[in-house]
Amino acid sequence: MLSKAIFYHAGCPVCVDAEQGLAHALDPARFNAEIVNFANAPGRIGEAEAAGVVSVPALVVDGQVYHINFGASLDDVKRG
Amino acid sequence: MLSKAIFYHAGCPVCVDAEQGLAHALDPARFNAEIVNFANAPGRIGEAEAAGVVSVPALVVDGQVYHINFGASLDDVKRG
Repeated sequence: MLSKAIFYHAGCPVCVDAEQGLAHALDPARFNAEIVNFANAPGRIGEAEAAGVVSVPALVVDGQVYHINFGASLDDVKRG
Repeated sequence: MLSKAIFYHAGCPVCVDAEQGLAHALDPARFNAEIVNFANAPGRIGEAEAAGVVSVPALVVDGQVYHINFGASLDDVKRG
């Protein structure tokens, strides 16, 4: 069964770089990777927060949160 | 041709967690992943620094540095 990996970002340069370099680098044989851009899906900020995401970009793998470098805080994202 | 991915860490709990969750999650069809633990390979701290690593755990993919969460600064690692 594939593990779930969700990459949350907000379109920032640091985010896009991490998406290209890391989110798309996961083994497709083991991970079902989803990319969530809060600019297009603001309704999913709550779910990320509940998972423990405090800044973007972040990758949540099987419920484990990995903050990758630092693009923006989730508070900044919420303020738009 | 496989891309080179080097995961640098120092044995800290945050490091080990990121190693399990992320470093081993890369697609083996595209990445040649190497795990470097400074506790066993202190001689490689300089190479990591030159690549731009400032804290561990960090993953360097094709020369791009991704700092993942925060375990310890490289300065702390150097001080032992």
